[in-house]
Parts: sequence; C-alpha cells; structure tokens
Amino acid sequence: MRGVILRGPGDVRVENRDDPRIVEPTDAVIKVAATCICGSDLWPYRGADDVHDAPMGHEYVGTVTEVGADVTKIEVGDFVVGSFFTSDNTCEICRSGYQSICIHRTPMGREGTQAQFARIPNADGTLVATPGTPDPDLIPSLLAASDVLGTGWFAAAVAAQAGPGKTVAVVGDGAVGLLGILAAKHLGAERIIAMSRHADRQALARRFGATDIVEERGAAGVANIKELTDGLGAHSTVEAVGTQESMDQAIRSTRPGGHVGYVGVSHDVVLEGRPLFYSGVHLHGGPAPVRRFLPELIRLIWDRAIDPGAVFDLTLPLEDATVGYRAMDERRATKVLLTV
Amino acid sequence: MRGVILRGPGDVRVENRDDPRIVEPTDAVIKVAATCICGSDLWPYRGADDVHDAPMGHEYVGTVTEVGADVTKIEVGDFVVGSFFTSDNTCEICRSGYQSICIHRTPMGREGTQAQFARIPNADGTLVATPGTPDPDLIPSLLAASDVLGTGWFAAAVAAQAGPGKTVAVVGDGAVGLLGILAAKHLGAERIIAMSRHADRQALARRFGATDIVEERGAAGVANIKELTDGLGAHSTVEAVGTQESMDQAIRSTRPGGHVGYVGVSHDVVLEGRPLFYSGVHLHGGPAPVRRFLPELIRLIWDRAIDPGAVFDLTLPLEDATVGYRAMDERRATKVLLTV
Repeated sequence: MRGVILRGPGDVRVENRDDPRIVEPTDAVIKVAATCICGSDLWPYRGADDVHDAPMGHEYVGTVTEVGADVTKIEVGDFVVGSFFTSDNTCEICRSGYQSICIHRTPMGREGTQAQFARIPNADGTLVATPGTPDPDLIPSLLAASDVLGTGWFAAAVAAQAGPGKTVAVVGDGAVGLLGILAAKHLGAERIIAMSRHADRQALARRFGATDIVEERGAAGVANIKELTDGLGAHSTVEAVGTQESMDQAIRSTRPGGHVGYVGVSHDVVLEGRPLFYSGVHLHGGPAPVRRFLPELIRLIWDRAIDPGAVFDLTLPLEDATVGYRAMDERRATKVLLTV
Repeated sequence: MRGVILRGPGDVRVENRDDPRIVEPTDAVIKVAATCICGSDLWPYRGADDVHDAPMGHEYVGTVTEVGADVTKIEVGDFVVGSFFTSDNTCEICRSGYQSICIHRTPMGREGTQAQFARIPNADGTLVATPGTPDPDLIPSLLAASDVLGTGWFAAAVAAQAGPGKTVAVVGDGAVGLLGILAAKHLGAERIIAMSRHADRQALARRFGATDIVEERGAAGVANIKELTDGLGAHSTVEAVGTQESMDQAIRSTRPGGHVGYVGVSHDVVLEGRPLFYSGVHLHGGPAPVRRFLPELIRLIWDRAIDPGAVFDLTLPLEDATVGYRAMDERRATKVLLTV
C-alpha cells in the first residue's frame, strides 16, 4: 500500500509500505477513507522531535476490512472512527474516562494512518462505528472527531470546565483551539474570547461561537482579557499550543479558582511553582481521552448539530501529502485533510 | 503589648509592640486567646525567605475588643476564628469560594498575630464567631481551624477530591498533612496512605485515619504507593510540603485522571511540562480559602466530631515563642501553640 513516511526533518514522502495485517487477536484492519495532518506532526517535521524513517499519522476514519478472532463489537464493513491512542476501554483508567492513558494503550502514530490501510490494536475498545455509511460531506467532521474535535472538547468541557455563565478564553487558533471554541459554544458558555492574529482563523472562530477576539499576546493579551472580565480573568481557559508562551498566557488569563485546560503537547514548557501556587487555578490536561466523547460527538455530527469539519481548509489526495505538510508548516493551511 | 518579631534569620524575639487600633472602618481588634507557629514561619526563620524586623504569626483565635464603624456582623465580646488572608467575602472571587484570593485581601502575617492583640482588616468577611465562649479544651482545635485544618481540608476535599471509594496519599507529615488525613477520613476515603518517617507522626496519622504508612521517598515511595493501588497510583494526593521533591512525589504517586491538591507554599519548585502533560493528573492548590470552610469546621469542632487540636504537641506561653521556633526548626515539635 501507499503511506506517508517521515525520513527526517522536512523530508516527508509518500512511499510503498507493507499492507498491515492482524497481529493480535484483538486487532482490526481498516481501509482508511480519510486521514489528516496534525499540528503535532509538525514538531518532528520541523526537527523539534527527533524522528526518522517513521510512518506518520494518527487520525483516521474508514471501513473495517478484517478483524481478529477476539474482536466482538466491531464487524467487517463497519464505518468507524478511532483516535490517536488505542484503549481496551475496560481497565480502571478507561472506566474513569481516561482512555488515552489506558493501561493497554498503544500509539496509533506508530501504525501511521496516513496510508491506505491501518492496523487498529484494541479494536473493540478503540473504534466506534457510525450508524451507517456516512454521507460524503460528513466525512471531514467525523475525521475531526478522531483527534482535534475530541481534544478541543476534552479541553473545554472537562479540563477547562466551560459551561453556562462562564467566560472562556482560548489560547491558540489552530484546529484544536477553534474546535475548543465550538465545544464551549455547544456547552453554553456565555462569552468566548479567541486569541488569534489571523483574519481567516478569526472568521472561523466567530462562526464556531467566539464573541470576542484578542490579537495581543503576553502581558498585553492578559490585560485585554482582564479588561473583558471585570479585572478577574476568564473562568475557563483552553490552552491549545504547548509552548511556554501559551501556557503562561493561559495561566495568567485565568481567574483564581478558574480552570486551565491544556492540550497542546508540551514542548520545553517549565512551570514556576510559586506563581502557579498563588494563581489559584486548576490545571488539567494532557493527551485527550477522545474515545470517551466519540459516541456523543458522532451523534452530534450525524444529526448535523455541529460542523467541526469546517476546520479543514485544504483537501489533497494522500499522494500529495508532502504538499499538505508544507502548507501547514508555512501556515497557509490550518488543517489538511488527505483523501485516500 | 508583647509580640513576636523576626529580626533576621534565626533571630526571633518577643518584644514590646504598639497596641493595634482600628485603622479602617471595616477593621476589628481582637484580644488573642491563642496563636501558633506555622511551618511557613520556618522559611524566613531559616533564611529561605528574605525577611527582617517583621512581626510574625497569621493564625489566631480570640475575643473581639473593638470594631470599626462599618462592621455589622461581628460584635465586641464575640469569640472568633479567622485565617491568614482577610477577605471581604462578597466579591466574585470570594463568592466562588476563593476567599484567600479575595480582590480586597490583606495578609494577616503583616499584622503579626503572635501577639497579645491583633488588628483584623475586613472583619465582617474574615472572622467567624463561635456559638459561644468555647470550653478551654476546644481552643487548640479552633486555632487549628484558623490555618492548618482549613488548609488540609481544602487540599483533601476540594483540590485532591478525596471522598468515598478513593485512595488518598498524603505527602508531608507536618500539621497540614496530618490534618489532610483527618479531612480525608471525615470525607469517607476508603484508604489513606501517609508518607512519613517519624514514629510519633505516624501514630498521629493513624489516629486521624491513615490506613497505611509509606516511609520510602522518591522512586521507592512511588513504587510503594503503586503497589498498594494495583499499579495505578492514588486517586487523590495531598501535597503539604512545597519542595521539588514533594511535588514530584505527589504527581508521580497519582493515577491518570487523579487529583493532586498542593498546599505547601512552593519554594524553588519547577514543573516540567512534558511529564506533567502525560501524567494526566488534575493539579490544584495554592493558599487555601480557609474562610470557606470555617463555619463547617467550627461546627464539627464544637460538636467534638473532630479533634484537630491534637496536632499541637508543644504548648508554651507567648513569652517563650523563641523556644517554640527552635523546637519546630529542629523537628522536636510538629506544631507549637502559644497561649496569650
């Protein structure tokens, strides 16, 4: 089959790879219908993570073509959505809602879903079947559920505790931040402040529910958010970047007793204990347990209650993945969908 | 009046100080009945905080002797309990339960309650009157409510989310940690693991409700806690020290999705973003909003349902405060009560 391989920093290629096959009896194999490029794929692409000769991709929707002997909940022919960590969905950590840290999890990035087929370990606990074969226009939204929507949802709903009466600030205007806005809106937040400097992303932020835009960063950005919140800061802040600047921004933009939901994969972030202590904020985040939200998110998408697929602003065939990486790297695209 | 002054590191004295008086119409003045030495007083005493010529003390119970013109809820003659930050108890931050970060807060450490009298700013929002004049044997427990009990309670109940069915680990066997155990027990925690190396503190930990003792620290301590929790870690961890070692211990001892409540005042702590991200824990803490819990804690003490005063293992007259500082510094005493 064809699949994306990162040979080294800046060197991503579409090459022939071995077809995946059932290895464990709990595996499934899917024919990928669509996959995409993640903001986190840019870290190794840019050389910030030391990765060589690796298959790429961890977002996917597709049709099951084969299941292992122990798979009972997923059938050949099902159209399924999964996420970036597989999970048994039965261990104590899964049952508490943290399937992304399942004791039997495996990273889908290792399988590399930017490909025609993919092996899905822990298929029963990982994949969620849609009610039927989706209309083609639903595929982008279902694919978004696989990672960026589920991550934004976790950040807003659980980690940042967005909800009615709350003012929510969102740091980061990538796909996860934008879908954090969509989640906050759906959860009934009263005011949603998007921190964004890009006109196109500001427009999408407003479409998803942002009521205010703050372009400033650092101390000026914090001052702006304080001004919009009676000097107190946001109740709930979504951090969707993963840099020192964005984490500081998020913590300082949040009122005492407020909640910071951080889902940008941390890169070189260090948090000083003393200011964190005196901030009085709640801090929660990490790899989002997307599996927890998939049934609800699939239903909302199926009912056309939300349209997270709008974050994809560039669609390319898998063979042109290299073009997609360049577009995202150069910020000409927010999120690239690859058709397979 | 007589009061404690820290002249410099290691140099604490009981000296004559001006009698406090009403400055703002929202002030009260109390005749201190009992005060105590806090673990956090040891930081400047040891020179870790740069403090000179400062009045000391922020824990207090006593009788109101004078009130300002705008004080309406507290009367002369009331026996009252307050805490280390004053609060108006009416601002949005107070109403959300974070009175220790009230927009009008003032630090009681600046007033220095290790003295015969103390001025209490924001009296109406800070002080809680007991149902009557307490029996003398209740005074230590009411004094504990002023800081260490309220702090342990916040850490366990709110920040670490201790409760029925939970395994709670407590890092730190000082007064706050011990009272975090008492709080966890009262809240119905199933298992309470005290991390302690001192036989006398272990005994008090067990009296307050600890079911297990872990003496090891670092990786061995984490391994021990994992062994007691099916390899997963505690649901809820109270961090009551404030050092790098104790914060690392707390985070690493907590399961994914679990809660770390940290109330030890941070000293030189830095948290690496990446391991925190992948830990999946909730992190919350800071200066405890003791005021929020005072009505409930006073009632429990008044009804003799809890006996937090047992943490005081040395009682001295105010004039001998110097002896008390030395005893705590040399770990011969867990918590020193000063009678006034």
